[in-house]
Amino acid sequence: MALDRLKSVTQHFTGNAPPPHPFDPLSNAEIESAVSVIRKEHGKLHYNAITLKEPPKKEMLKWLENQKLPLPTRIADVVVIAPGGKVIDGWVNLQTGKIIKWESLDGVQPLITMEDLQIVEHVCRKDPKVIEQCVISGIPAEDMHKVFCDPWTIGYDHRFGSDVRLQQALMYYRPHIDDSQYSFPLDFCPIFDAGKQEIIHIDIPEIRRPVSKAKPNNYHVDAIQKEGGYRKDIKPINITQPEGVSFKVEGRVIDWQNWKVHVGFNYKEGIVLNNITYNDKGTVRPIFYRLSLAEMVVPYGNPEHPHQRKHAFDLGEYGGGYMTNSLSLGCDCKGAIHYMDAAFVNRAGDSTTIKNAICIHEEDAGILFKHTDFRDDSCIVTRGRKLIISHIFTAANYEYCVYWIFHQDGTVQLEIKLTGILNTYAMNPGEDTKGWGTEVYPGVNAHNHQHLFCLRIDPNIDGPNNTIFQVDATPGAGAVGSKENPYGNAFYAERTKYTKVKEATSDYNGATSRTWDMCNTNKLNPYSHKPVSYKLVSREVPGLLPKEGSLVWKRAGFARHAVHVTQYDDEQLYPAGRHVPQTSGEPSKGMPEWIANGEASIENTDVVLWHTFGITHFPAPEDFPIMPAEPMTLLLRPRNFFVRNPALDVPPSYCSTPSQIASKSQVLDAADKMSKLVVTGSGAECC
Amino acid sequence: MALDRLKSVTQHFTGNAPPPHPFDPLSNAEIESAVSVIRKEHGKLHYNAITLKEPPKKEMLKWLENQKLPLPTRIADVVVIAPGGKVIDGWVNLQTGKIIKWESLDGVQPLITMEDLQIVEHVCRKDPKVIEQCVISGIPAEDMHKVFCDPWTIGYDHRFGSDVRLQQALMYYRPHIDDSQYSFPLDFCPIFDAGKQEIIHIDIPEIRRPVSKAKPNNYHVDAIQKEGGYRKDIKPINITQPEGVSFKVEGRVIDWQNWKVHVGFNYKEGIVLNNITYNDKGTVRPIFYRLSLAEMVVPYGNPEHPHQRKHAFDLGEYGGGYMTNSLSLGCDCKGAIHYMDAAFVNRAGDSTTIKNAICIHEEDAGILFKHTDFRDDSCIVTRGRKLIISHIFTAANYEYCVYWIFHQDGTVQLEIKLTGILNTYAMNPGEDTKGWGTEVYPGVNAHNHQHLFCLRIDPNIDGPNNTIFQVDATPGAGAVGSKENPYGNAFYAERTKYTKVKEATSDYNGATSRTWDMCNTNKLNPYSHKPVSYKLVSREVPGLLPKEGSLVWKRAGFARHAVHVTQYDDEQLYPAGRHVPQTSGEPSKGMPEWIANGEASIENTDVVLWHTFGITHFPAPEDFPIMPAEPMTLLLRPRNFFVRNPALDVPPSYCSTPSQIASKSQVLDAADKMSKLVVTGSGAECC
Repeated sequence: MALDRLKSVTQHFTGNAPPPHPFDPLSNAEIESAVSVIRKEHGKLHYNAITLKEPPKKEMLKWLENQKLPLPTRIADVVVIAPGGKVIDGWVNLQTGKIIKWESLDGVQPLITMEDLQIVEHVCRKDPKVIEQCVISGIPAEDMHKVFCDPWTIGYDHRFGSDVRLQQALMYYRPHIDDSQYSFPLDFCPIFDAGKQEIIHIDIPEIRRPVSKAKPNNYHVDAIQKEGGYRKDIKPINITQPEGVSFKVEGRVIDWQNWKVHVGFNYKEGIVLNNITYNDKGTVRPIFYRLSLAEMVVPYGNPEHPHQRKHAFDLGEYGGGYMTNSLSLGCDCKGAIHYMDAAFVNRAGDSTTIKNAICIHEEDAGILFKHTDFRDDSCIVTRGRKLIISHIFTAANYEYCVYWIFHQDGTVQLEIKLTGILNTYAMNPGEDTKGWGTEVYPGVNAHNHQHLFCLRIDPNIDGPNNTIFQVDATPGAGAVGSKENPYGNAFYAERTKYTKVKEATSDYNGATSRTWDMCNTNKLNPYSHKPVSYKLVSREVPGLLPKEGSLVWKRAGFARHAVHVTQYDDEQLYPAGRHVPQTSGEPSKGMPEWIANGEASIENTDVVLWHTFGITHFPAPEDFPIMPAEPMTLLLRPRNFFVRNPALDVPPSYCSTPSQIASKSQVLDAADKMSKLVVTGSGAECC
Repeated sequence: MALDRLKSVTQHFTGNAPPPHPFDPLSNAEIESAVSVIRKEHGKLHYNAITLKEPPKKEMLKWLENQKLPLPTRIADVVVIAPGGKVIDGWVNLQTGKIIKWESLDGVQPLITMEDLQIVEHVCRKDPKVIEQCVISGIPAEDMHKVFCDPWTIGYDHRFGSDVRLQQALMYYRPHIDDSQYSFPLDFCPIFDAGKQEIIHIDIPEIRRPVSKAKPNNYHVDAIQKEGGYRKDIKPINITQPEGVSFKVEGRVIDWQNWKVHVGFNYKEGIVLNNITYNDKGTVRPIFYRLSLAEMVVPYGNPEHPHQRKHAFDLGEYGGGYMTNSLSLGCDCKGAIHYMDAAFVNRAGDSTTIKNAICIHEEDAGILFKHTDFRDDSCIVTRGRKLIISHIFTAANYEYCVYWIFHQDGTVQLEIKLTGILNTYAMNPGEDTKGWGTEVYPGVNAHNHQHLFCLRIDPNIDGPNNTIFQVDATPGAGAVGSKENPYGNAFYAERTKYTKVKEATSDYNGATSRTWDMCNTNKLNPYSHKPVSYKLVSREVPGLLPKEGSLVWKRAGFARHAVHVTQYDDEQLYPAGRHVPQTSGEPSKGMPEWIANGEASIENTDVVLWHTFGITHFPAPEDFPIMPAEPMTLLLRPRNFFVRNPALDVPPSYCSTPSQIASKSQVLDAADKMSKLVVTGSGAECC
C-alpha cells in the first residue's frame, strides 16, 4: 500500500499530466503520498491536516518571472496528533519522499475537524450526567436521541488550560427529527475531553431554564406547506450563456478580461487567490501576490458565564475549507458554472474530496459606464460584467458565503453574505434579556455578536516593494475668510505614510471616510504623478467591542484594530496563530507577536496589510428561524494605477457621436436583443 | 385651442379611463389643462414647472384607508416666470379649472431648465468678450463653433445677488466635433444674465492657462477602433423571463412579492415612491408613506475663485426629473422590462414627454437563505430576487443612476451609481494642483468634490405616529473583572430616543456602527417585545467638508448633519428650499428653518427622517475620460417588524430534511435547469 502510494507520487511528476502549478493545492495523490511517507516512519497517527506549504515568496517570484526555472519543491505541511495527544507539525518533501521537519509541540491544540465535532453529540447522549441535566430541563431520559449538540472548541477556559484537548457542547433539543433544534436550546454546557472521549465537566447556570414548550419554528417544506404553502407568483428568470463563458481555465489559473488569477484552496482559509495580474495593453502587471480571508472571530456579548467562551475563530479553530459546502448547480450558483473540487486528509490518513467546493461564474454587472451629451443626446452606454469566485462554508449554525469578485474596471471586490441560523440560548418566559440578546421566538435568546473577518492582503503593486498610506478626507487649513481658504470650501485627501510597523496600527474613521492606499512609490502615474496604487475601501468596520484585557481581546489580537501592516514573512499567515484552539492569549499569538517590533520598517518594502472588518449583529425575529442573507462588501480599487479607465474597450451596447447625430448616420446599436418589454396592465406578461 | 384643452380635462375625469390615482403625476392632458387655465387669465408666460401638488397627507391617509371616499382634489403646482423676470408660484385646481393660488415672489430664482441651459452656449459663442478670452486661450476666433460650455446655476455670487437670473458658463473646447470637451477645459468663466440673454461678466483668473495641446482623450467607437479596437472575448449572458414577470402593474401601483408601491415621478426628485406597504400574511401593513431623493449638493474643494461657486444642487437647481434619460431596452435595462414615461411642461407651456423615464424589472438576487446541518447534510437553499425601480439622470458632465430595490426579506435598498465624466478645469504643464485636484490627463485638473444626497424618508411604520432612535453598538459597563462584566465581553445596542427636534441633529459614527431605527412604539413585536421598526443602515456618510460659515454650508443646511428629524409638514419637501438657485444662505432655506424650533416634539408623532449620505471623490486617471460606475448603497431593514423571516414561503431550490436523508426518500429538488456546467480546460465552453 505504502509503496503503491509512493509510486503514484512518481507518476504524478513523470506521467502525462502536467506537473502541478506551485500554487496548486495538494492533490488527493499528493496527500496520500505524504501520509504514506509519514506512516512508514511513524506508524498510526490521527491526521489533523495536510495542506500545501506554499513555496517561499522569494523563490516563487523568481519562478513567476521566468517559468522555465525549475519548479519550486512541493512540500506538504502536516499536522498530526500522536497517541497520547502529542501534537506534531511536520513537512514532507513530496519530490524526495522525505520528512524534512517533525516538531513536537507542547500546550497547543490544532483545529477541530468535522470528524472531531461529530463524535461529541454521541458521547453526550450516553453520558449519565448529561442525561441527568436533560431530565432536569424537562426531557425524558428515553428521549436522548432527540438531544443534539453543536460542539465548539472551548475557546479558552482557565480551569482546564491548553494541554487537554477540549470541546464545549452547546445543547439543543428536537421534539421531532425534522424540527430545528435552535428553537429549543438547553441551558447547560458539557465539556468534552477528546483524549478521554468523555464529558469531564458540565457548566450549569444558577438560574435554570427548562426546555421551551413553544411550538417548533421550522423552515422546511412540510412546515411551510402546513402554514399555507409556497408563493405561486414567482416566474422563472433564466440566465444562459449559449456561446460559453468569457473566461479560460488553465489548470487553476483563470484568465478573464485582462485579469489572471490562480485559484487555490486550503482547509483553513478556503479560497486563496494568488498572483493576481492585469494585462494592461500588453504589459502584465502584478497587483496582489496573495488574497485570502486569513482569520475571523465571532465574539458574543453576553457577559454571563460561560458565554464568554462563545467567540469562535471559525477559520483558525474549525477551518473555512474543511467546513465548505459541496455546491449545487442551479441552487447555489446560476448560469454557466465552472467548479473546482477540494482535497483533504481525514483523521485516518485517507484523502477525501469535497466536490464542487469552488464556484466560478460570470454575471451581468449592470451599467459599467454611461454618458449622454445634453446638447444633442449623443450617448454611450456600456454594460459591465463580473467574474465571481465563491465558496460557502457552514460553521455549525451559521453559513458564510464568500464571493471574490473581479470587475472590468480593475476593481476587486470581496462580498460576504451571512445566512444560516442564529446561535441561540435558553430563556424563561418573561425573562429579561438585559440587552445582551433578543427574544427572537418564545424561549429563544439570540445573543448579540460580531462577525469580524481578517482579510490578508499581500500587495504586489507593480512589484513587491510597496508602502501603505492612510487617506483621510480633510477640510483645508484656514478659517472662512482666510487667505488660503477664503470661501471655506477647501478639502483634500490627507495622506499619512506608514513608515514603521507601530504607525500602521490604525482604526477606521467614518468621519473622514478613511481608506488605505497600497502604493508603489517607485512608480508614478504619468498623468497624476502620484504613486501607482490600489485603495482599500471598506465601510463595515466595527471595532472589537469586548474590552482591552478581555479573553477575546487577548486571543484575537488581529481584531484590535482595523489595519495592521507587517513586513512580509513566509511564516506569517494566520493572525491568531497557527494553532488557535485553547490559546489563552497570554501571550497573544499571531499579530501581537508580529508587530512586537514596532520600529521595523514597512516603507518601500515587501509588506502585508491585514484588515479586520465585519458587522455587529443585534438579532431580531426577522433573522429566525433561518436568516435572510445579510451582505457586506469591500473594494480594492485601482487609483493612479492605470492611465485611464481600463474598460474603454469593452464593447458598448449603444454609442452615438455628435457628428453621427448631426448627419443622421448609422450609430453603434448592439443592444441585447433578448430583453423584452413587459405588456403593461395587470397581466404583466412579456411580449 | 384653450377650449379644446379644457375639454380634454373633462374627458379625463368622465371618460372610460379610470381617474388618476391621487399620487399619479400629472398627465400630459392635465399639464395642458393647467396651462390653458393660466393662459386664459395671465396670457403668455415662461413655464418653469408644472407638477402634481400631492394631496394633504391627512386627507390622503383617510383615502388610502377607504378608497370609496371621494378622490382628493387634483391640483397642479405651477412655477412661471412672467415677462420682466417676476417669479410666480401658483396652484390650479384641475377639477374646477380655477387658479387657487397666484403668488409673486421676490428675490428668488426657480430652477434652471434644460431649455434655459441650452441657450447659454449659443450666446457665449457670439459674445465678443468671450471670443477675446478664447483667443487669449489659444483658440482662433473662427473656431468659436468648437467652443462649448456647461451652463451651471451661479450658485450664489454676492456681487450679483439673487434678483437677476444668472448662470455661470464652464467653458470647454472641442478640437473636433466628436472629441470629448472635458479634456480641453478653458480657464475663464462667463456669467450669463437670463433676463438680458447676454454675458454680463467674465471671471478671469490671475494665472492664465491656455487650452491644452494634448491629444484628445475619447471613448467613442472611432477612438477605440483606432487604439486597437474592442475586446472580442465577451460571450453573451442572456437573461429572459419566458413566462413573464412576477409583478403586476395597476396604473402606477406595482404589486410584487407582498410589496405594493405607488411609483410617482416629478421634475425635481425624479422617482417618488408612495404608500409602500407589505402584505404580512393577509394584513396589509404600511411601512413608508413616501420615499425620495429630495436634494443633493456637490461641493468642490478647490478654494480658488470662482470654484467656490461649483457646488451644484442637482435636484433643486436643475431637477433630477427634468434631466432624466429616456432609457433603452437591452442597454440601460436588461431582461423583461416595464417602462413608465414622464410628462413635463416646456417653457412655452406645451406638455412634453420623456419616454421610458422609469425602468421596472426583476433580477436574480443570489442566495436568499441557506443552511446545511453538518450532521447529515440535510439542507435548504432558497434563491432570492429583487424588484428594481430605476431612473438615470444626466447633470451636465455626471450621470446618476438611481435604483430603488425591493427585496423579499422586507428590505428596501437604495443604490446609486455615479458615472459620466468628471468636471474638469484647466492646468498648465507642470502646475501644482496643491492637493485640491488631480491631473487626470495632461492639462486636465479634476477637482476634489463630494456627492451628498438627501434621502427623505417619511416613515409609516404600522401607522404615521413614529419615533426615531439612534442606535450605537457599545461595550457594556464595568471593567474586565467587574461583577457586571467579569470577562469584559459585554456589548449591547445603546438606543437614544429623539424626543425633540434638536436632539435629532446627528452625525454618523463609524466606530459604533451607528444606525437609526424608525419605530412605532405603540406596537411591540410579540416575541422580542421591542417596537416594530425599520432600521436605516447607511455606511457611506461623509460629513460636509466645507467649513461652518462657508457658502455651501450656509446654502446646504441639510448637509450639515447625517440625520435630521422634523415633524411632518405637507409643505416641507425640499430641504434646501423650494427655489434653490441663487439662495445666499442668509438666512438658510429649508432644513435650518424647519429645525429652528428645536423644542418641537418628534416623539410618537408623524415625523420625517432626512438622511444625508454620499461619497467624497478624489479623482484619479482611472475615472477619465469616462468614469466606471462607482456604487454606493444603503438599506432600510425590518427589525422587530415581522415575527419571523417573511420570506420563508419563497420556494426553495433544494430542501431535504433529516428524516428524508435517513429514509432516503424524495427531497425537494427544484434547481434551475437552465444552469449548465462549463467544460473545464482552456476551451471553457458550456456543455
